[in-house]
Formats: sequence, structure tokens, C-alpha cells
Amino acid sequence: MVAEEQITAAAVLIGNELLSGSVKDKNLHYIATSLLNAGITLREVRVIPDDCEAIVDAVNTLRASMDYVFTTGGIGPTHDDITAECIAKAFGRDLIQHAETAETMRAYFTSKGVEANDERMRMANMPDGAEPVRNEHSVVPGFRMENVYVLAGVPSVMRSMMDAAIPLLRRGRPIYTSSVRCDLQEGSLARGLADIQNAHPGVDIGSYPLSKAFNYDVSLVVRGTDEALVAQVIDAIVVLIGQLNGSVLERH
Amino acid sequence: MVAEEQITAAAVLIGNELLSGSVKDKNLHYIATSLLNAGITLREVRVIPDDCEAIVDAVNTLRASMDYVFTTGGIGPTHDDITAECIAKAFGRDLIQHAETAETMRAYFTSKGVEANDERMRMANMPDGAEPVRNEHSVVPGFRMENVYVLAGVPSVMRSMMDAAIPLLRRGRPIYTSSVRCDLQEGSLARGLADIQNAHPGVDIGSYPLSKAFNYDVSLVVRGTDEALVAQVIDAIVVLIGQLNGSVLERH
Repeated sequence: MVAEEQITAAAVLIGNELLSGSVKDKNLHYIATSLLNAGITLREVRVIPDDCEAIVDAVNTLRASMDYVFTTGGIGPTHDDITAECIAKAFGRDLIQHAETAETMRAYFTSKGVEANDERMRMANMPDGAEPVRNEHSVVPGFRMENVYVLAGVPSVMRSMMDAAIPLLRRGRPIYTSSVRCDLQEGSLARGLADIQNAHPGVDIGSYPLSKAFNYDVSLVVRGTDEALVAQVIDAIVVLIGQLNGSVLERH
Repeated sequence: MVAEEQITAAAVLIGNELLSGSVKDKNLHYIATSLLNAGITLREVRVIPDDCEAIVDAVNTLRASMDYVFTTGGIGPTHDDITAECIAKAFGRDLIQHAETAETMRAYFTSKGVEANDERMRMANMPDGAEPVRNEHSVVPGFRMENVYVLAGVPSVMRSMMDAAIPLLRRGRPIYTSSVRCDLQEGSLARGLADIQNAHPGVDIGSYPLSKAFNYDVSLVVRGTDEALVAQVIDAIVVLIGQLNGSVLERH
């Protein structure tokens, strides 16, 4: 286990469609890698329905224990888009129309010949005290309320909002990752790997069989904030693979 | 909102690799659709690291409030596979070797000329009182401890264990899903959709823009346990699309 202080984050993916299998999540992986690259440790993800109690519960639990919380989904114009009002509820704030955002949106809709109806203009609503997270993709922003970043669910829009959020975050020490894939079984590697992990508490070693439990194809991933140590542990794993008469298939 | 009593479930996806972006989750969608087909409502998913405290916390919170909990990941032979011992801890049970499972595994390993070393045999460990979830894919089973089903993380193995678990579950009323895709914007549909939702509290209507917020491509999904009502609500949405001069692109 990496013992030094970490900047931590959680993500809350909001949407009945993810829980019913109607839509496959495409956001978790982008959030995970964006945070990793910023040296921020993603500690937990929750997938919850479009249900106010569930949203308030998840956000209030996680914002108390994490440096940052990112939500995705439920900020569009339809009746099932309830995230903004639930975030306001979680913080005990009023939901207000963000004046500058409303003005920009109205101008944009007018220029496109699209009606700035009440439903579309709901997307300018934020909890009192929130700041818009403006982004390259859309005139409709996400928003930040204290340490909670509220992002869209549609992957292309979410990515753009996440990219806009990243420069606003406190960054941790970069986390270095290195991996080696080999033609051995996990059960053959396990004892030696445990010895290497115990000898190097400054890194995390993960072992991931790539297809099925008894296949001969395992990826070993080493992560840590000390780049030289990560490289040294990968070297030790490569030596172990050789001792077990295995071959390295790939190394990154 | 569908008001009638539901059989509920949660999933806990365990693995540092999911949170660091090293591995993309491939299990959530299969779990979601398997449960939907069994009439069981997946209410929450948590993705957590290979960390005993996080596993105990998530499992104990969710097993108290849900009919079923499914975990994936962390039941292999390597040092980072700590799920079985953490489930035992969550239930206040000892971790024991399941005798019959150990015997089957040892016979299998011997027949394959693979060493039945301590690390491989760890996969026969379960909390005292657990029952193996035997499956088509692998001689190593998952296990059930009360209402918690502990499954593998490797997708092919997980699927096989999930398929083995499904017949053991109490089933709810089937949930019917119907959807229609059209060439309108969410912002144009929103008012009419909200009216239809309000008039039909027996179904859930979800609205999912398929690419970006201002694109003209929205999927409307209706779900509920009353098949005729689901069909009737889809018909009402098709009428709404026509009234707004839109076209139906696809209907399921």
C-alpha cells in the first residue's frame, strides 16, 4: 500500500439507464484516467438511479470523506434530469437560475433558431453559490458546488466538462504505472509476487488474468509515486517470470 | 416512479484496476441485464479498491438494505485477492477451507499437471457457512454468504457464476422495456414528455440524448411491470413526436 498522503476523489454516476442495462457506462474509464494523470486517487465510484434521496445520500457521504466528488448525468432539460435540484438539497441551498449562464444560453438558442423554452432554460439552474464549469463542447455548463463537480452524462459532453474541471483541481504527485504481461498462470506467480509486494510497500502490485482463470496470460501492473521504484519492481517481476520459465509477452 | 414492491439488488465491483483506469469494467452491463431479466431491480453499484475496510463497509451497508448483493473481483490466488477474507470479516465469520471444493480443485489441478500450491488452494477458502456457487466455466466456484453472492472479476468467469446464481434468486415481476428513437432535441420533447410521465406514474420514462446535447437524436425508454401500459405510453410518445413534426427513427 502506498502510505503517503493522497488527494482523493469519488465519482457518482447518476442514471436509471446505467442500472437497467439500457445504456453502457462510457464515463468511468475517462474519469479514472483523467484523475490518475492529475495525481488524484479515485477511491470509489457509485452508480445510482435518478432518485433524489439516493443522490443526496451518495453526494453527502462522499463529499465529507473525499477531496473531490464528480457526478455525471441528469443535468439535461427533461423530467428525469433532477441532479441540480438534488445537489442543492444536499447542500441545503436554494436552486437558482445562474444569470450569466442564462443570458449566454438564451443568446445561443436565439442564434440557432431554437426556442429558449422553460425546459431548456432549466439547464441554467444551479444551487445558490455554485460556479459554472464552462467547456468547449456546449453552451450549457456543468457546475462546481464546493468540492462537488456536476457534469453531464453524455460521454462527449462529460469529457469536455471533465477536461475543464481538471485545471481547477489541486494536483497530487503523479502516479507512475508500469506493466508486464506474461504467459504464466496467476497460481504459479502468486507466491513470488507476494514476496516482491511485501519487500516493496511503496508500490501497489496488481495481478490481472486477461481471459479466464486457468489461462496462461496474466498482466502485472505496478503503480506508485516513485518512478524509479516502480521500474525496479517491474524488473524484479521480470526476473521472477524468468525463474518460473515464463516469457514476457509485452512490457509498458 | 414504479410504486409496487420490488426485489432489489446492489453490485460491488472490487478492484484497484477499475479505479485507476488500467482495466475497463465489462461486468456491470451483464449484471444489470441479468437482473432485469429476472425481474430484480438493480438499485446501486459501487466500485471500490482492493481494501478490506472499503469492502466490509460497502457489503455491510448494502446487504442490510437490499435483497441481494453481488460482488465481483478479488477471488483469485494472488496477494491482491482479499475478497473472501473481507466477506468473512463483514459477516463476523471465520475464513475456512470448503472441504468439498478443495477436494474437487485438488483433483482437477492434479489431472492437469498443475501444482495444487497454497496460493491456488486459497481459492477454496470461504467464510464459515458459505455455499459454493458452482459454474460451467471453472472448477473454482464463487460463493453465497446469506444474501451476498461473491463472483469472479474476469468477465467470462463472472458471467458463468452470475448465470449459476440467477436460478437461486427470488424473482420479481418481469420488467418490460420499450423504446423509441427520434430526430428531435430533448429540449423540444421535454414538456410533452413530462406531461406523459405525470399522467402515467406506473412507468418510468427515461430520455437519453445519443450523442451530444444539441444533436437531434434522442432515445426514449419506457419501463414498467405492466406490459400493456408500457406499450400504451410508447404510443403516446410516438403521437407526441408527430405533433412536434419529428420522425421515429427506430422502435423496439
